[in-house]
Amino acid sequence: MEAVTEARCIARDEADPLAQCRDRFDMPDGVIYLDGNSLGPLPRSSAGLVGETLGEHWGRGLIRSWNDAGWFDLPLALGDRLGALVGAAPGQVAVCDNTSINTFKAISAAVGLNPGRNRVIACRDEFPTDLYMIQGLSGLSGGAIELVLAESADDAMARLGEDTAVVLLSQVNYRSAALLDMAAITRKIHDAGALAVWDLCHSAGALAVELDHCGADIAVGCTYKYLNGGPGSPAFIYVAERHQEAARQPLSGWWSHAKPFDFSPGFTAAAGIRRFLTGTQPILSLVAVGAGLDTFNGVSMADVRAKSLALCELFACLVRQECGSADLEVRAGGPWEGRGSHVCLSFPRGYALMQALIQHGVIGDFRAPDLMRFGFAPLYNGYHDVWRAVQILSQCLSDGCYLDPRYNRAAPVT
Amino acid sequence: MEAVTEARCIARDEADPLAQCRDRFDMPDGVIYLDGNSLGPLPRSSAGLVGETLGEHWGRGLIRSWNDAGWFDLPLALGDRLGALVGAAPGQVAVCDNTSINTFKAISAAVGLNPGRNRVIACRDEFPTDLYMIQGLSGLSGGAIELVLAESADDAMARLGEDTAVVLLSQVNYRSAALLDMAAITRKIHDAGALAVWDLCHSAGALAVELDHCGADIAVGCTYKYLNGGPGSPAFIYVAERHQEAARQPLSGWWSHAKPFDFSPGFTAAAGIRRFLTGTQPILSLVAVGAGLDTFNGVSMADVRAKSLALCELFACLVRQECGSADLEVRAGGPWEGRGSHVCLSFPRGYALMQALIQHGVIGDFRAPDLMRFGFAPLYNGYHDVWRAVQILSQCLSDGCYLDPRYNRAAPVT
Repeated sequence: MEAVTEARCIARDEADPLAQCRDRFDMPDGVIYLDGNSLGPLPRSSAGLVGETLGEHWGRGLIRSWNDAGWFDLPLALGDRLGALVGAAPGQVAVCDNTSINTFKAISAAVGLNPGRNRVIACRDEFPTDLYMIQGLSGLSGGAIELVLAESADDAMARLGEDTAVVLLSQVNYRSAALLDMAAITRKIHDAGALAVWDLCHSAGALAVELDHCGADIAVGCTYKYLNGGPGSPAFIYVAERHQEAARQPLSGWWSHAKPFDFSPGFTAAAGIRRFLTGTQPILSLVAVGAGLDTFNGVSMADVRAKSLALCELFACLVRQECGSADLEVRAGGPWEGRGSHVCLSFPRGYALMQALIQHGVIGDFRAPDLMRFGFAPLYNGYHDVWRAVQILSQCLSDGCYLDPRYNRAAPVT
Repeated sequence: MEAVTEARCIARDEADPLAQCRDRFDMPDGVIYLDGNSLGPLPRSSAGLVGETLGEHWGRGLIRSWNDAGWFDLPLALGDRLGALVGAAPGQVAVCDNTSINTFKAISAAVGLNPGRNRVIACRDEFPTDLYMIQGLSGLSGGAIELVLAESADDAMARLGEDTAVVLLSQVNYRSAALLDMAAITRKIHDAGALAVWDLCHSAGALAVELDHCGADIAVGCTYKYLNGGPGSPAFIYVAERHQEAARQPLSGWWSHAKPFDFSPGFTAAAGIRRFLTGTQPILSLVAVGAGLDTFNGVSMADVRAKSLALCELFACLVRQECGSADLEVRAGGPWEGRGSHVCLSFPRGYALMQALIQHGVIGDFRAPDLMRFGFAPLYNGYHDVWRAVQILSQCLSDGCYLDPRYNRAAPVT
C-alpha cells in the first residue's frame, strides 16, 4: 500500500466541502484539538449571543425577557433545531437539565409505558452515569425496577425476555467508539415487547442519527461534545410523539405543568415534550447551545459522516505508518462504518504520553487503564491536522519525552 | 402621624450604609426595578467573568479548563461562598441543578434518613414546584411516600405525628411574604421525630438565614432572585454535616460518585456534600452565580435585613398616604419583622395595573388572582426609588391609564 504523504493530506483539505466550517470556531493557535468528543470548541457566535443575553436581555430587559427574549420557550425552540440534526421531527426534543437527569426521566417514563414489565437492560461498559441513574431509580422503586447488566449489545439482545421493559444503549460507545445499528436493534427490542432508550452523547453531531426513521422510543444526549454547546451545556431528551400523551416522568417541576402560572398545588402534565422539563433552566448556558447549533447551519450530516470516517481512517493509517512503537496499538476492529468519530490507541504509559502530547499542542484525552482517545470533528479538524498530530505523536514516542516525571501526575478531570 | 416627604426619602438614601452597593449593578436608566424577588439584575462583574470563561477558559483552555479553571469543583466552591450568606459552615452547600431537582433530592434523602416514617408535610400555598416534586417522588415510591397538604405552617405543626418523616416549609412565602421562625419550627419538627427541609428561595440574600444555628436538616433555594445569579442560574442544596454520611439521593449521576473517573459500573457515593450533585453542571450559568455572590462582598446581612424592612414599611406607608383608591389594599398583616422582602398589594384589576406600571418604568410582577408583588432588594433599591414608584402608582390609579385595553392581554411569564 502506498504511503500517505503530507502533500496528500494538504490536498484533501483543499478538496474538503466542510473546510470553511473551521472559521465558525474561535480556536487557539498552536493547538490541534482532538477532544471535541469531550468538549467542543468555542463557536465564534457564542460571545455575541451570550453577550447580548447578558447585556441586553438580562441587563436591560430584566424580568421581561422571560417573554420578550423567548427564554421560557428556549428549551423547546432549541429542541426543534437540535432535532433536525438527529432525525427528529419538531415537537419531540427538549434541551434541558443534564444527561444524567434526562436518563432518569427517560428510563422512568419508558418503564411506565410498559406496565407489567420491570427489567431494564443496559451494558456494563455503558458510560456509567446512565447505570448509576438506573440504580438510583431502582432503589427508589424499592427494587421493583431492576437493572440487568449485559456484557455487550449482543448479550443485551440475548437477554430480552417477557419481563424486559426497556433496553438502554449508547449508539456510539464512549470508549470503544463501537457504533450500533439503531434501526435493527430497535426492531429487535420492539419485537420482544420492550422499549428502546438511546444515549446519543457520542453520536449527536458526529453522524446522521435517524431517531424517527429507526423507531426509537426515547433518547438522551449531551450538547457539549460534537454539538459545541459549551462546558456543561444543558442536555437533550427526545420522546417519540406516539408516546408523549401516555408518558409520565417523576421530576415533574413547574416547567412541566400544563399551566405553570396558575400556581395550582396539584400537578397536571403539560401536553407534548414540555412535560419532560423539570424546573427553571440555566439561560446563559442554553443560549450557548444555540451558538453550538449554529455551527451546523447548512451542513449536510452525510458530509460530516463521510469526513469523520476519512479522518479516523487516516489517523489509524498514519499511526501505523509513522509510529514505530510495538506497544502502541490502534484499538479499532472491523470496518470504519461500524464506528463513531473517535479512535482509541492503547499504550501502557498512555496517561503520561497523552500529557506529553498536550504539552506539545495535541489535545486528546485519556481513559483508564491505558486508552488514549482522539476525537475527530469534521467541522474543525482537517486532514493536515491529522498528519501533524501523528508526527508529534511519533516524535514523543521516539524521543521518550513522556517518560519525564512531570507527565505522571494523577489523572486529570476531563 | 407625620406625612413622609420626598426630602425625607432622599435624606435616608444619603445616610444608607448600603447605598454604594447600587454601583455593583448594571441597570437600565428610567427603570425602578422592584422585581429582584423574581430575577435579580445584572451585576457589573458578570460580563467580565462570563466573558473570561468564554474567551479564555473555554476558547483557549478548552478541555483543560475542567481542571485549570476549577470548573469541576465550582459547585462546591460556590456552595461554600453561598453558605456564608445563609449561615452554613463550609462543606455543606452545593450550587447545582435547579430548585425542583434539588427539592426531589432533599425530600428523598430526608425520608431515607428517617426510616419507618413515610409522610411528608408541606403547605398547600407552598411554591407549587415543591409540591409537584414530592408528588413525583410519591408516585415513584408506589405511594409508600405520602404527601400531606397542610393549610398553613401552624396546621403543619398540628399534623406532626409518628409517621411524619419530613416537613418542607418555605422560610418566606412566595406570595404572602410571611416569614417563618426557622429555629422554633425546626425544634418542633425535631421534637416530633421528623426532619426539617427548608425552601430558601425568597429568603436567601434577603435576610440573615441561619441554617446551622437553627439546626435545619436540609435546605434548597435558588440563586436568581436576591442572589443575582442570572436567569435560571443553578440552585443550591444544603445538607447539614451530621446527616451527610448517612444521606443518599437517587439522582446519583457520575458527579456524585466517589471516583467519577474510574468509570466503574457500580455506584459509590462521594463523601460530603458532593454526593448531592447529579451530572455535569452548566458552567456559564454557574460562573454568573459567582458574580451574583460578588455583589454581597463586605455586606452585612444585618444591614440588608434592616434596610429591607425599612423599604417595605416605607412602601406600605406611602401607598396608604399617596394612593387614594379604596380598591387598593396592602396585604401585610402583623409586624414587619414577620415578613420577607416583598410586599403585595391586592387590586381587582391588578394585572392591568402592573402592566401599566411596567410601561411607566416601575417593574414588579403579578400573581393571580389579584396580587401585585413588589420586591425590595437593599443592594440596589433606595428610599427615593420607593417614593418615585409610589408617585407613579398613584398617578396610574388617578388617571386610570391601566384601563387601556392594551394592558389587559394574557398574563405574562414572570
